[in-house]
Amino acid sequence: MTDKPKAAKTAVKAPVPKSEQTRTLILETALRLFQERGFDKTTMRAIATEAGVSVGNAYYYFSSKEHLVQGFYDRIGAEHRLAARAVLDRETDLEARMAGVLTVWIDVAAPYHEFAAQFFKNAADPESPLSPFSPESEHARDAAVAVHREVLAGSRAKVPNELAELLPELMWLAQMGLVLYWVFDRSEGSERSRRLAERGARLTSSGIALSRFRVLRPLVREVHELFEDFLPGMAEVAATRASRRPSTES
Amino acid sequence: MTDKPKAAKTAVKAPVPKSEQTRTLILETALRLFQERGFDKTTMRAIATEAGVSVGNAYYYFSSKEHLVQGFYDRIGAEHRLAARAVLDRETDLEARMAGVLTVWIDVAAPYHEFAAQFFKNAADPESPLSPFSPESEHARDAAVAVHREVLAGSRAKVPNELAELLPELMWLAQMGLVLYWVFDRSEGSERSRRLAERGARLTSSGIALSRFRVLRPLVREVHELFEDFLPGMAEVAATRASRRPSTES
Repeated sequence: MTDKPKAAKTAVKAPVPKSEQTRTLILETALRLFQERGFDKTTMRAIATEAGVSVGNAYYYFSSKEHLVQGFYDRIGAEHRLAARAVLDRETDLEARMAGVLTVWIDVAAPYHEFAAQFFKNAADPESPLSPFSPESEHARDAAVAVHREVLAGSRAKVPNELAELLPELMWLAQMGLVLYWVFDRSEGSERSRRLAERGARLTSSGIALSRFRVLRPLVREVHELFEDFLPGMAEVAATRASRRPSTES
Repeated sequence: MTDKPKAAKTAVKAPVPKSEQTRTLILETALRLFQERGFDKTTMRAIATEAGVSVGNAYYYFSSKEHLVQGFYDRIGAEHRLAARAVLDRETDLEARMAGVLTVWIDVAAPYHEFAAQFFKNAADPESPLSPFSPESEHARDAAVAVHREVLAGSRAKVPNELAELLPELMWLAQMGLVLYWVFDRSEGSERSRRLAERGARLTSSGIALSRFRVLRPLVREVHELFEDFLPGMAEVAATRASRRPSTES
């Protein structure tokens, strides 16, 4: 219960506003019930009862179960940024930065592994508000893409300007691929997912190294365009971003 | 009811063995019940009753519900090969061959769209026997990869020998991406999936055209290796194939 994201084993002493405590209590209760009873079978009423708050109070903080899931996404994202800090401050090699950031994600997400597997079918539909690609997930997604932007920007790798803006989103998409793999990974300590994170980081950094060959750049653009056009939430975000973007591009 | 795969609206007059008719009847009944009641809630007993055969008889043809799903994969694959024939005989341009083959898949799969959406969560787990990546699905997968091999081989595109063996599997993987998109596509007539098929074909053929640049080949190899290493069923198949492969490989 803290005004900062709660990282595993980080004791925070600062006093926390009562409203923030209630919010966290409701979120944690919901996650526990989703895990115990399943997402579909857990009602807001049951969450309120278990958390010892009124139903009205629960709805004040989270206007639907879907909002609770967004709260969960924001929280796991915040925990991840906190854990990634050490990697980003330490490593300058692109591959090491990527592998490190993906690996700490697996660490941070470990307590939610069981929940993720049963929750998966709700989030797999790109049109669902629970999908990581939905407009509703934009906040969590933007924050996650920003981590990848920092992975790239803080590395020694030379990235052509015209790709520097696209690559972090593609790296995030690759991370979503890893998350999908991890959801179903039954190896001890998600060992296989960890190896996939390392191999994926190697592959991505080789791919980025090849971007100095101009002939490849249109392909990267095309992949990125495809991804924006066909993922419903991403398309909206892309449109918004385009209207915000300064005209200095390329 | 035919000894050839039954294509939609193809009337076949040749007499069909009784056992084949029974097998088809059980498979079609099962698909209908899966659609009406859900895969999880449909028992082999219910399938037998609805099909008017004994439970023992149903088990004689399909030793589990999972085998029925494999039967379904084989059947949709056979329908697809039949429908793809016209495209493969007509087109020589790689992009047109790919787009055509993917588009006829969407046509052939249309009657199963609703089933696919509710069935999805059973097949998304790569460790499930129902996953397209599982060892159990090898038969259906090999047949589907063979279609992509023909897409490539029959085109005018020049493909380096060292990639000719890997690319059909990567093209099939891209098709699985399209299938995932289609499962959740709610546009009229799966219009968005059709556009994705066309755009994907364009992107893939541009990518293949770039394979004349030697610098890219290690990357293609690495992507392929990653895919074989991390998809459980694929790894087994790869091992088997390696032991069958003549030693002429570069």
